[in-house]
Parts: sequence; structure tokens; C-alpha cells
Amino acid sequence: MIDTALFRDGMSRLAGAVNLITTDGAAGRHGFTASAVCSVTDTPATLLVCMNRAVSARAAFEQNGTLCVNVLCGVHEPLSNLFASRAASMEERFAAAQWRTGDTGAPILADGAVAFDCTIDLIQEVGTHSVLFCRIVGVHLFEDAVDTLVWGSRRYHRLPVQTRP
Amino acid sequence: MIDTALFRDGMSRLAGAVNLITTDGAAGRHGFTASAVCSVTDTPATLLVCMNRAVSARAAFEQNGTLCVNVLCGVHEPLSNLFASRAASMEERFAAAQWRTGDTGAPILADGAVAFDCTIDLIQEVGTHSVLFCRIVGVHLFEDAVDTLVWGSRRYHRLPVQTRP
Repeated sequence: MIDTALFRDGMSRLAGAVNLITTDGAAGRHGFTASAVCSVTDTPATLLVCMNRAVSARAAFEQNGTLCVNVLCGVHEPLSNLFASRAASMEERFAAAQWRTGDTGAPILADGAVAFDCTIDLIQEVGTHSVLFCRIVGVHLFEDAVDTLVWGSRRYHRLPVQTRP
Repeated sequence: MIDTALFRDGMSRLAGAVNLITTDGAAGRHGFTASAVCSVTDTPATLLVCMNRAVSARAAFEQNGTLCVNVLCGVHEPLSNLFASRAASMEERFAAAQWRTGDTGAPILADGAVAFDCTIDLIQEVGTHSVLFCRIVGVHLFEDAVDTLVWGSRRYHRLPVQTRP
């Protein structure tokens, strides 16, 4: 058995993009902060999101059957903290930013670095977490993004975005 | 259908740690560079690795049943390129660094930021890729690591490692 503190020390070195995972539909509007997001394949365009099953919104994501992965920019650090705070209601969270609605109905952060609008294809349960395999139906690039927000070694970093020539 | 170029432009903004995924056993020693690695749960300690099914080593990983995720430091940029190069043989790759052997038999990079020694529990096939769910049996922290290597916006970055007080 791996000690939880050692697992977390180790994982703190596996840096990753900071994202807001959002959904809307019959089960209502929900969103949370996650860095456990991974590209899977471009054929068909698929990503995955890991989600704690204890999160109250878990059932809403499954029921809505859709989600959007909003990759954050440097300026979104307070928004990341807000969507990670158990004390903040969904109303408070969504009131703190501008949103559009994707083809799936999921909320798209207006000025995120990029948004992946998805339908949830398959859910794999692993211990305390659910892994959501998501088919990407829309990719929304924010052309004015200058950086992206990354979490590593227990703090935020900003990585410059390179625009194509 | 999502255009492949648009998918890749979008995913270029989802920054992530750069890792060497290694294995050894009856099917021989193999290794490749991957950034599609994700923490899943600490109960039981589990991570996942996405791997192209067309990679020649795919069968070897499944047959050995074990792998090590070696999170790279800034100085390992050439090693990352080498393990990503189709032209480099496994002998050439492994000759370029110092290794130890984990409890599973997988090669552990001696000076990687952290290594997760794992057994492969479950493989989920998704389109062109396999998602390997791996039980972590050992976490090896390299105390002298000063930074980790991250890939984002189609280039390398170095993030400082924060040591615990």
C-alpha cells in the first residue's frame, strides 16, 4: 500500500493544465476545477476527465451526458480557486465570469485559452474516482490568449501561448 | 467530426508534464516519451497512461504487465527527444541515462523528478489509443530535483520544484 502523503508528494511533481469542467442540462448547471484531464486520441477526437465520485455534481454530469473542458489562462487564477471552493455555490461560481453555450448545452468560458465541448461516451469507475471518456464535438480557441494556467509543485505557473505563424 | 489540425491546436494548450514510460520483463526492455499521463485516485494509488496502439512496444507493455512513469527534470530535454524518436533503438535510448530497477522490474530513471513504479491493472481501448490503468506499487522521489519538464504550446518549459519546508 502506498502512503497517501507520499502519493501526493509524488503527484505534486506531475504538472498539468488547470481547467474548469462545466455542464448544463436537465440536472442543472455545475462546474468544478480539475487538472486531471488528458488527451486520448484524435480518431475519434476524445479526451478524459477524472472526477471524485464524492463530488456532489457527479450525478449531474452523468445525467446531463455532456461537459465542457475550459483550459484556463493566467488571469483566471481567482476563478480556479472559486470553482475549487466547496463554500462557493454554483450561482456564485458562474456569476464570476462570462459564458457562452456550446452545441451540447454546456457552458463555455468566453475567454478561456481553449474549450472542448463534449458528450460523455463512457464512464470507468476506479476506486474513489470516475474516469469520464468524452467525445469532442467542438473546439473553441480563444485567439487573444497570451498564456495558460498550470498547477505544479503545489502552486500556479503561467506558460506563454505560442500562436501559429 | 473534429478536424485533426484543430484538435491538435486545441490540445497544444493543454500543458502537461513530460514523462518516460518504461517497462522490462519477458517481452524485453522498452520505453517512450509521453505527456498523456494522469493521476486517477489515491485509494488505491492509481494513475493512467495513454498509448498509441500503433507503437511497436504496445504488446511488450501488456505482456510485461508492468511500467514505470518517470517524470522528467529540465536537464532531461535531450532524453525526452531521444525516447520520442522513432529512429533511436531501445539500446540507444537506455544507454543515454542511468537506471535502477523497480520492484516490478521496470527501469527507474536514476535522477528523474519522481518515478511511479506500477503494475498494469486494466487496459481500455479508445479509437487509436489504449488507456492503461496502473496500480502504483512504489513512489521514488529524487530529492535533488530543482525543476520539472513541461510540454505546452508545442515547446518545452521548466517549472521550479518546491521542496517541502
